Amino acid sequence: MGSGSGLGVLFRITTFGESHGPGLGVVIDGCPPRIPVDAALVQRELDRRRPGQSTLTSPRKETDRVEILSGVNGGVALGTPIAMLIRNEDARSKDYAQIARAYRPSHADFTYDAKYGVRAVAGGGRASARETAGRVAAGAIAQQILAHHGIEIVAWVDEVCGIGATVDGATVTRAAVDTHDVRCPDDAAAAQMTERIERARKDGDSVGGVVRAVARGVPAGWGEPVFDKLDADLAKAMMSIPAVKGVEIGSGFAGTLMTGSQHNDLFVPRPGGGIRTATNHSGGIQGGISNGEPVTVRVAFKPTATIMRAQESVDREGNVATLEPRGRHDPCVLPRAVPIVEAMLALVLVDHFLRQQARG
Amino acid sequence: MGSGSGLGVLFRITTFGESHGPGLGVVIDGCPPRIPVDAALVQRELDRRRPGQSTLTSPRKETDRVEILSGVNGGVALGTPIAMLIRNEDARSKDYAQIARAYRPSHADFTYDAKYGVRAVAGGGRASARETAGRVAAGAIAQQILAHHGIEIVAWVDEVCGIGATVDGATVTRAAVDTHDVRCPDDAAAAQMTERIERARKDGDSVGGVVRAVARGVPAGWGEPVFDKLDADLAKAMMSIPAVKGVEIGSGFAGTLMTGSQHNDLFVPRPGGGIRTATNHSGGIQGGISNGEPVTVRVAFKPTATIMRAQESVDREGNVATLEPRGRHDPCVLPRAVPIVEAMLALVLVDHFLRQQARG
Amino acid sequence: MGSGSGLGVLFRITTFGESHGPGLGVVIDGCPPRIPVDAALVQRELDRRRPGQSTLTSPRKETDRVEILSGVNGGVALGTPIAMLIRNEDARSKDYAQIARAYRPSHADFTYDAKYGVRAVAGGGRASARETAGRVAAGAIAQQILAHHGIEIVAWVDEVCGIGATVDGATVTRAAVDTHDVRCPDDAAAAQMTERIERARKDGDSVGGVVRAVARGVPAGWGEPVFDKLDADLAKAMMSIPAVKGVEIGSGFAGTLMTGSQHNDLFVPRPGGGIRTATNHSGGIQGGISNGEPVTVRVAFKPTATIMRAQESVDREGNVATLEPRGRHDPCVLPRAVPIVEAMLALVLVDHFLRQQARG
Amino acid sequence: MGSGSGLGVLFRITTFGESHGPGLGVVIDGCPPRIPVDAALVQRELDRRRPGQSTLTSPRKETDRVEILSGVNGGVALGTPIAMLIRNEDARSKDYAQIARAYRPSHADFTYDAKYGVRAVAGGGRASARETAGRVAAGAIAQQILAHHGIEIVAWVDEVCGIGATVDGATVTRAAVDTHDVRCPDDAAAAQMTERIERARKDGDSVGGVVRAVARGVPAGWGEPVFDKLDADLAKAMMSIPAVKGVEIGSGFAGTLMTGSQHNDLFVPRPGGGIRTATNHSGGIQGGISNGEPVTVRVAFKPTATIMRAQESVDREGNVATLEPRGRHDPCVLPRAVPIVEAMLALVLVDHFLRQQARG
Repeated sequence: MGSGSGLGVLFRITTFGESHGPGLGVVIDGCPPRIPVDAALVQRELDRRRPGQSTLTSPRKETDRVEILSGVNGGVALGTPIAMLIRNEDARSKDYAQIARAYRPSHADFTYDAKYGVRAVAGGGRASARETAGRVAAGAIAQQILAHHGIEIVAWVDEVCGIGATVDGATVTRAAVDTHDVRCPDDAAAAQMTERIERARKDGDSVGGVVRAVARGVPAGWGEPVFDKLDADLAKAMMSIPAVKGVEIGSGFAGTLMTGSQHNDLFVPRPGGGIRTATNHSGGIQGGISNGEPVTVRVAFKPTATIMRAQESVDREGNVATLEPRGRHDPCVLPRAVPIVEAMLALVLVDHFLRQQARG
Repeated sequence: MGSGSGLGVLFRITTFGESHGPGLGVVIDGCPPRIPVDAALVQRELDRRRPGQSTLTSPRKETDRVEILSGVNGGVALGTPIAMLIRNEDARSKDYAQIARAYRPSHADFTYDAKYGVRAVAGGGRASARETAGRVAAGAIAQQILAHHGIEIVAWVDEVCGIGATVDGATVTRAAVDTHDVRCPDDAAAAQMTERIERARKDGDSVGGVVRAVARGVPAGWGEPVFDKLDADLAKAMMSIPAVKGVEIGSGFAGTLMTGSQHNDLFVPRPGGGIRTATNHSGGIQGGISNGEPVTVRVAFKPTATIMRAQESVDREGNVATLEPRGRHDPCVLPRAVPIVEAMLALVLVDHFLRQQARG
Repeated sequence: MGSGSGLGVLFRITTFGESHGPGLGVVIDGCPPRIPVDAALVQRELDRRRPGQSTLTSPRKETDRVEILSGVNGGVALGTPIAMLIRNEDARSKDYAQIARAYRPSHADFTYDAKYGVRAVAGGGRASARETAGRVAAGAIAQQILAHHGIEIVAWVDEVCGIGATVDGATVTRAAVDTHDVRCPDDAAAAQMTERIERARKDGDSVGGVVRAVARGVPAGWGEPVFDKLDADLAKAMMSIPAVKGVEIGSGFAGTLMTGSQHNDLFVPRPGGGIRTATNHSGGIQGGISNGEPVTVRVAFKPTATIMRAQESVDREGNVATLEPRGRHDPCVLPRAVPIVEAMLALVLVDHFLRQQARG
Repeated sequence: MGSGSGLGVLFRITTFGESHGPGLGVVIDGCPPRIPVDAALVQRELDRRRPGQSTLTSPRKETDRVEILSGVNGGVALGTPIAMLIRNEDARSKDYAQIARAYRPSHADFTYDAKYGVRAVAGGGRASARETAGRVAAGAIAQQILAHHGIEIVAWVDEVCGIGATVDGATVTRAAVDTHDVRCPDDAAAAQMTERIERARKDGDSVGGVVRAVARGVPAGWGEPVFDKLDADLAKAMMSIPAVKGVEIGSGFAGTLMTGSQHNDLFVPRPGGGIRTATNHSGGIQGGISNGEPVTVRVAFKPTATIMRAQESVDREGNVATLEPRGRHDPCVLPRAVPIVEAMLALVLVDHFLRQQARG
């Protein structure tokens, strides 16, 4: 647990794999037994993540076929580790020859060299966004468990380079999100975002943005203060996604512009019994514990580091070198990030579900 | 580790204590041996955190005297667990009588009841910001270790309710920060912030804001992809502080407004050898690993939930009840949050320092 | 979790303290809420562990008064960390002057120096058996939880220097065990053991032996293959007790003398429904999971390293030196080890109880 | 980490796989970078573990070809997770039809059903000894790291059903161990053991015994008191091997027959500088920390549960049923257990090596 490729306490995932080695995948330790595990459903999420789905994202053809190696028998989880493997196909290491020489700006080439003293040069190695395939596969199973308990997760592209969408988190559906390639359910905003991304492609440049996610149906009581608070674990999970630079829960940074009397979520009786809050600036989490309202999170993605422009850099020996643009690029990762954010949200929630359930 | 009161792998802290029980504190497991541990230095940080330092913050008189119970002999760490205890003094449970009845809005009263089915009613119990005293004590020792390796941590109040400061993270000192009670080193902004906070006090209301922090001198190579990335662990640590709703590393949400060609931090030769980046939108972290540039983080604090106004709420049985303002309140926690943010930054860094050092 | 002073995943304890510093104790993170926590009950177990209970054990007077610092309110657990503190009283550091010079044979003086490069010289520091007070305090609470679920734990001295007892693990009670100072419920064996220990005392020598323990009422299904098997975690917990050199589950080493047809525990219908085994060579654990039969464990304690005889040794600089006997000694730790073994058994069981309960 | 399929803190392994699913394997998280990783060497250890090596062990033909999926590039470790996969070939699920009906005595059929409520019926599923292939693969890499630091691990069959060997742990080599199929380097004892095992086979019965292991060259200072003591972690690792019922460090249970004056390991100057002990009853570990002497451990294996005799049992519904012998059996697992014990010893040592190295 000291080396960073594992996440979760009771529903614990360990991912493995470089972008251009034999394969990559994930092991889930702690999936509750007797849960139906449907490989097709895992595949469906992987298909939403992989490149080449539309002209908006990288044209690489990765078929990303998942194989379940263990932990499932007759369509149900055994309670033992579920290992899932995705073979790499599109190696094309020739494109990466110059990467070996000069550090790509705002990639992890330099830091991996600094840390490990060695690096899988082809394709970004372990730092490649391709690593998230294992997360998405595990997250698909986590979502199956949560769905069984009435919890629904939806994420969407909320902003692209400042172009914001208007979306009602209480009602938005995944089907609505997937209507547009850009994965924004607000038609007008989707059109603008698409145009902005296309312009970035033509410019050989890239853009970032914000993915917003909501989990509806989370009961009150999940989260483990004072460090493994639900919001703290969500912040970690989201920040661990490649290219993420910011995370907000509920009102986030905008909440700092309000006064306490404006921001406080007043408790009111819930029609039919129980208690709820009149507003949800808390994002469904108070004191690090879910309060029964929708859990809401916003995740900031920087513009993709890979651009189709010549950039000055330095090689391993400290010599200045020019990196010429080569290969293909993804002018905006946001649409593909949607299923990744959903997966991370699901993985954190299912772990906390089990942790709370342990209390009996 | 499943119950949430521990943080870190090799420099692991466990905090304990409610705000109104016999006492609270922290156990550090994994402090490197032979480090000088100075109780006075720990006390100094606790003094920066405690209420009653100025008119800006809560007038409660908590002397917060720390006692080191173990792990230190002759002024140096033994390498064994360092337990530190702070006795509670200012119980005043009478002020909290009505809390027992109705849930305070945007506090953790309701969620603790939902989670544990029982609650230390007086003073917020475990959810009280007073719990952070243990973090600050442990962080003081972490900072001593980091200082020994040339790492310097400074945090300051960067924004209060939209009033922003202009501060150069490369040069700002802790002395400059502590010049003003509001802990903002920009004189003009400090004056405005102070005025805004005083106004909130008079209104019986509260305000939030942003604390920014920088760690200078962090070498390249710290952080454990893919989940325990340095930025991911920082996000978790910061989000676990009471009242925090957002975290940014480097460019954060503002970075989503830039294009890749603007945002990429170009590598350039470092004068005197080595390599550095021309800009630092990455906030000193690339691919989850420090790159040798200053590590920068921004933390959003919501306005304090406790206000001096009557608020509608609901009690445990679901009856509507009015909470009358009572006791004292802290119209803005930001100044006291500065040492807490510094502590959390130090705790994450020292853990990653040891984890990287394990690689030999 | 990398520094070794914590145990357990969901019921996690962290002990702290040296034998001659200000104090020692334990923090429990993960005690289920609403469990009655009775300080008197904790004290009772500590009294069974402390020295000076009889002429058989060390005459040191340690009153070992426990103070509960947090996590308990109105006699019930809050679900938050329970910190317990025991102040040190009997420092007597003058007796330990020569320890500072030469390494005591088969103590941890040398290895602590080798590991940490510094050592709390007085009284064995962290390696002192006194550290187990924290375990016993935590174990008392664990036993309260288990008792609530119908689980009963009894340990006794089963062998002293080859003198064996005949005890029926299915029926032995703690009251019967505590009848004799030597904590062996077999009267005849107890008399012989007592005599053997007294002889060792007169010889200025020491003796070891075996503690056996049984947990009755453990339901089938506890234990987490393949590494956190119930027997594996018990082996670790027992081997972590000072002076332990061997652990057996069920038939243990004697089982290696049987054939499979003799050793196999045949399943038979349980009167009244269900299933049980006709014999219990498995010690209540099969495949690392409890099977509903009594969990049985045997723990070998070496003869105490402290003896009242001159011994040759070497000091820190490598010079030969003679250690003269001084102070007092415990010719046999077995009677005091009984509550420690019970505590460790309870701590492992309660953690696995919660882990299995998380499966729902 | 709460679900039991992971081991280690900094060199952490997670195994996965059932005996009759698509495959099984292991992920190592935390292998130090730049270590040469030789797949052939991993395969060699797997070949020593697999069945069918001699007439003494199960005639099943498992080729157990390992594939390294990640974490290695150009023959060296990248520092990222190393995933290794072994495909299952010899499913033969028809032999296991009756297992589905009645619980096999002293197997894990009943307890897996009790725990998970579902079970991979074919071949023992996750409880199969086949799971240890992943451990052996990971252990092979651990041994490569340790060898690089001058540490040598040798294990051998020390006893079979009471027939003991005389072996000098200070000098025995792995080549000597592998001379005989029974993996006992004492020729006379090996002959007797072989005969005893052959007799068990003819009887349709099975025998158990003891594997002893030594690690030479371990420096002083490894082990993390008070719970992750080196001996405690070894006890856990060994007890987690299928069929193990007892573990001894150094003198073990025999040490309880000695007095302190006999058992104490006196310190003496080490020729050429430093310090060592005149005897090694401590098994190279004092106070839970290695002392520079050979680390010695003895592991008791019960007789194999699978025998070729009819046995009475009970099925899932509680009906009495007779299990008829079928298929093949392994009359004695000890020879194949030798590389497993070596692997577990190596895995614990390498983790503690890294943990101590983190102290700088």
